[in-house]
Amino acid sequence: MKIIIDAMGGDHAPSAPVAAAARAATELNANIVLVGKQDIVEKELAKYKCDRSKIEIVNADEVIENTEEPVKAVKTKKNASVVVAANMLKRGEGDAMLSMGSTGALLTSGLLIVGRIKGVHRPALATLLPSAKGAKMLIDAGANTKCKKEYLLQFGIMGSIYMKNVLGIENPTVGLISNGEEEGKGDELCKETYPVLKASNLNFIGNIEGRDIMEGTADVMVTDGFTGNVILKTIEGMGHVVSDGVKEIFSGVLHKIGALFVLNGIKNFRQKMDYREYGGAPLLGTRRPVIKGHGSSDAKAVFSAIKQAIKFVDTDVIQSIKNNIDSMEEETDD
Amino acid sequence: MKIIIDAMGGDHAPSAPVAAAARAATELNANIVLVGKQDIVEKELAKYKCDRSKIEIVNADEVIENTEEPVKAVKTKKNASVVVAANMLKRGEGDAMLSMGSTGALLTSGLLIVGRIKGVHRPALATLLPSAKGAKMLIDAGANTKCKKEYLLQFGIMGSIYMKNVLGIENPTVGLISNGEEEGKGDELCKETYPVLKASNLNFIGNIEGRDIMEGTADVMVTDGFTGNVILKTIEGMGHVVSDGVKEIFSGVLHKIGALFVLNGIKNFRQKMDYREYGGAPLLGTRRPVIKGHGSSDAKAVFSAIKQAIKFVDTDVIQSIKNNIDSMEEETDD
Repeated sequence: MKIIIDAMGGDHAPSAPVAAAARAATELNANIVLVGKQDIVEKELAKYKCDRSKIEIVNADEVIENTEEPVKAVKTKKNASVVVAANMLKRGEGDAMLSMGSTGALLTSGLLIVGRIKGVHRPALATLLPSAKGAKMLIDAGANTKCKKEYLLQFGIMGSIYMKNVLGIENPTVGLISNGEEEGKGDELCKETYPVLKASNLNFIGNIEGRDIMEGTADVMVTDGFTGNVILKTIEGMGHVVSDGVKEIFSGVLHKIGALFVLNGIKNFRQKMDYREYGGAPLLGTRRPVIKGHGSSDAKAVFSAIKQAIKFVDTDVIQSIKNNIDSMEEETDD
Repeated sequence: MKIIIDAMGGDHAPSAPVAAAARAATELNANIVLVGKQDIVEKELAKYKCDRSKIEIVNADEVIENTEEPVKAVKTKKNASVVVAANMLKRGEGDAMLSMGSTGALLTSGLLIVGRIKGVHRPALATLLPSAKGAKMLIDAGANTKCKKEYLLQFGIMGSIYMKNVLGIENPTVGLISNGEEEGKGDELCKETYPVLKASNLNFIGNIEGRDIMEGTADVMVTDGFTGNVILKTIEGMGHVVSDGVKEIFSGVLHKIGALFVLNGIKNFRQKMDYREYGGAPLLGTRRPVIKGHGSSDAKAVFSAIKQAIKFVDTDVIQSIKNNIDSMEEETDD
């Protein structure tokens, strides 16, 4: 098992990816490839005691920033860390790749370099969200702004496979995000997709609404990448506001004394809502496992994402997707 | 000033609307019309000491439930409280109407009975959301699933007028909700709408993303009713989960002692995030003021919505909309 990590991507790069790699080399049964500026990564890695035989550093002189236009950047910066990592994955020089850098650059690298599984219309970004009933999947969380019903069906299939294989949920429920519960509610895409999901062999529970997302009504929440992106970022933004609010509550001296009494409660709640526990967002539909870690990932979050990548490989998600897409009625791939 | 209230709509009807009406008759300079089942409303109102000369009860034997198909219900239940209220408003037997009942039924009543302002393509539901920077408007929050760029321009105009007149915000900023900040990011509707908003005399600040919603980046957040509904309900759902989480934090005995120390902090935070402080959601673009109160409104929330209705009337929002729509380039009304 070998996990390729973009050591230069993310708000806390290279320190967080390198620290997580050092820990993974010690605690997990996996080899790690760190892709990034050799001298910087070497220097960072020297801070940790770890089994160096399990960590390889591959040089990549360039970095793609969040502000760059992804397709152009991936095509021109051949020596960017994410591009080098994707090419290694494509050539089979690793079993999965992970980047905390530009989402657009990773999606583009996944699509153009790693490539789609035959029969998959569009790979989709699948994010695990905390909910009142545990981790649930939002797919597509932003890879495809414009979608068709055939794409959404495949999002449901790929998401169900991931939730079953990686999270161990038997027969995961699938909901279609809409602005009303009844069949026939929604935009054109919802109206077209509902009967397709209903006729499939997925465990489809019908339309779900915004309030169902954090309630955890469905294990797999299917939507187009525009709506999914807006939902994901709305939740992230609200998380910040709530988190700042909680900090404010405990800011005064008396309040700090109060905080001592409720530390456990706060800890439990924060843990439940902590994205770092949930690993990264898998890009589903590519030929080999590609995972997007959160841009603000600290070492703990990167470590979770590495564990997730290992499980992604170990549970044969890609092969299951291939089998399921193959067994579907042959459709024209556009 | 006379406010017409659907006394039968909402989770806490008729008690919450009636209690709020009694308080409004005492504290506010307005007359109230309560529309609902005469005997039930009479009996409820008898619980309160108030100036009965300022409260009128108008009988309406039927109620439209949330589960009913709105257009059909409004057309067939001529004696439903929301329909009777809308007809009174249309005839000028009141200055504004307020309902906590079925959103669909109120939107339909507003559209079909009260009617659109000439030149307005589609009235839109405008919700005030709490944010880190105070109350901000989301428009359209669910009235129009399918939208065109001309509608979204008018949503921006109507929303800006409301925020200026009712909330006193000079030159309110307008953002277009999208899945990326740059011009050119977004679905087809976003791409078409961006240049239209840019060319308008609105204080347009460009695309905003999901994370900007609770950050309060823009005073008026323009989107289609599908996306707006999903956003609104996602936020409401997350609010419940967070609220339950905070309750859990303070559930144990030690935790309750801790809570005593932080009561003020919690109170401040909850107040900031409390939708009840923000009144209801105005339907903008109808000939007379129509306001949707939250379904779960208690008496305090209904009272806030009554105050908001009075301000809606007092600050001539409708006349301002008429003036602005008139001064726009004449467009074909579809």
